[in-house]
Amino acid sequence: MTSSTKLDSFFQELTAPDSFESKKHHLEVFTSRHLEKSNRIVLITSGGTTVPLESKTVRFIDNFSIGRRGALSAEYFLKQGYAVLYLYRHRSLQPFHHRIDKNILDILSVDETNGTSIKVQAPFVESLAPVVQQYHRYHDNGMLCQVDFTTLDEYLLLLRAACEALRGFDKSALVYLAAAVSDFYIPAAQMPEHKIQSSNGKLQLSLEMTPKLLKPLVKDWVPNAFTVSFKLETDPKIMISKARGALENYKHQMVIANLLHTRRKEVVMISADLEEKVVLTDEDLAAGKEIEGPLIARLVQIHAETLS
Amino acid sequence: MTSSTKLDSFFQELTAPDSFESKKHHLEVFTSRHLEKSNRIVLITSGGTTVPLESKTVRFIDNFSIGRRGALSAEYFLKQGYAVLYLYRHRSLQPFHHRIDKNILDILSVDETNGTSIKVQAPFVESLAPVVQQYHRYHDNGMLCQVDFTTLDEYLLLLRAACEALRGFDKSALVYLAAAVSDFYIPAAQMPEHKIQSSNGKLQLSLEMTPKLLKPLVKDWVPNAFTVSFKLETDPKIMISKARGALENYKHQMVIANLLHTRRKEVVMISADLEEKVVLTDEDLAAGKEIEGPLIARLVQIHAETLS
Repeated sequence: MTSSTKLDSFFQELTAPDSFESKKHHLEVFTSRHLEKSNRIVLITSGGTTVPLESKTVRFIDNFSIGRRGALSAEYFLKQGYAVLYLYRHRSLQPFHHRIDKNILDILSVDETNGTSIKVQAPFVESLAPVVQQYHRYHDNGMLCQVDFTTLDEYLLLLRAACEALRGFDKSALVYLAAAVSDFYIPAAQMPEHKIQSSNGKLQLSLEMTPKLLKPLVKDWVPNAFTVSFKLETDPKIMISKARGALENYKHQMVIANLLHTRRKEVVMISADLEEKVVLTDEDLAAGKEIEGPLIARLVQIHAETLS
Repeated sequence: MTSSTKLDSFFQELTAPDSFESKKHHLEVFTSRHLEKSNRIVLITSGGTTVPLESKTVRFIDNFSIGRRGALSAEYFLKQGYAVLYLYRHRSLQPFHHRIDKNILDILSVDETNGTSIKVQAPFVESLAPVVQQYHRYHDNGMLCQVDFTTLDEYLLLLRAACEALRGFDKSALVYLAAAVSDFYIPAAQMPEHKIQSSNGKLQLSLEMTPKLLKPLVKDWVPNAFTVSFKLETDPKIMISKARGALENYKHQMVIANLLHTRRKEVVMISADLEEKVVLTDEDLAAGKEIEGPLIARLVQIHAETLS
């Protein structure tokens, strides 16, 4: 996928859900408001994407990511004063909300002493109050806009719309691509209409590579933004070289490389002139520290240097 | 997969997560308590299963089902006096909880007038109070036990453990298999260790058929229970014949057949001597009725007839 003609025809074949126009409008209202105020803004993508195997869909290929990196990063960007446009997989983690680690019904009680009210039970108030307060502080002040997606098609269409809405921010926009996007998909024309019947013992699937949208994103959609992508690998031997390869290929500003098994305590920020580790010790982790804290603080510094 | 030797070796190759023994213990405590009280009991499976494509997992094949049928059915079984063992996909819908259709943080407020408390905001109390009360009525009385799973392997191991724990109930146990289980999987021995590298343009996957566990379930695990499976199709021409075929093949008590696009307003109960539709009108749907209400009421009648 190199020519823009090929890319145009790829986009024309994507299936936009009915809700697309209203979601697009919603995010454009958010970006316009912050553009007027000259705020710094970050677009965060989070969670995985779903690739249907049949056109009347029963089955998917999914690289479901619960979206922990994206949800935590959103919180730390808000604390740094950024407006956050959070583009996330439906049912994946959301900023602040993910800190409720229980079935909420277990900690709610109905009180009928003085009319009916519903309260959080006393033992849970201390830990939950700051979560509720922080959420309202940012959300009610219009600093956080959440837009959800499910399929790969919906993700790609919303990503393009969001990037185009950020173009006016010029270098003040940061694009932080933490979503785990499917590398493969089945083109609509090759998809069976009905549920694949499973009688002949094996299922042979042939998937095409998803075009790398990072190239048009950097070149055309939001060329002056500070764009950060992620590289999640399981094999430490190839992690850095894969990250450097992506940087050379897509000409964006930074790759954050991490290994599946150590991703919560070590990441490496890689740019043209930088290779910098952010590390938490086991003591930090035990004390409840989150690597997104120092990572976002440092990233915001680096972004600020490009603005001066 | 016909011989029990083949099945044994299939089970031996499954990967049990660390939490398996504690979940198994948890459900056994629940079933023992209800066996002592001679309660009727239903095992409900709900949600989809995940099939890893790599052993250090980054990608899955998923037939993610949000689990609406299972969650609603659990509520109506509770109302009919059954103890409910709810085996559900992690992050899929849970009984009562799924009726909170908002980000809970949007409707919670911190009140610091008289010490700190957290309350549900007034406009949402009327609709949420019965949800909280019903959940506590059944959960706090020990009538509802929820156990979650993610992968196909975990699902199969928990399903077998749950069925074996139900054996003592004899005909008083109902097994209600509403989960959307992956028909295909990649055997551990054929799985690459690291993330599949996506450079050569196409991804060719070859998946094996998942053994049909319904056969040993009916024959060996819980032979006297009233077992109900589901048949979800997209093609109306084959729905009934596929359901009849399953019934003949597995020798269980009932198949509930439904089409993807009408599943909320029409299902067909099919047993050896029965083919009975349960239908909601558009007016019923508009009034907020749920097809699981009449479906479970009728199913409980049919179950009762087998006990007399």
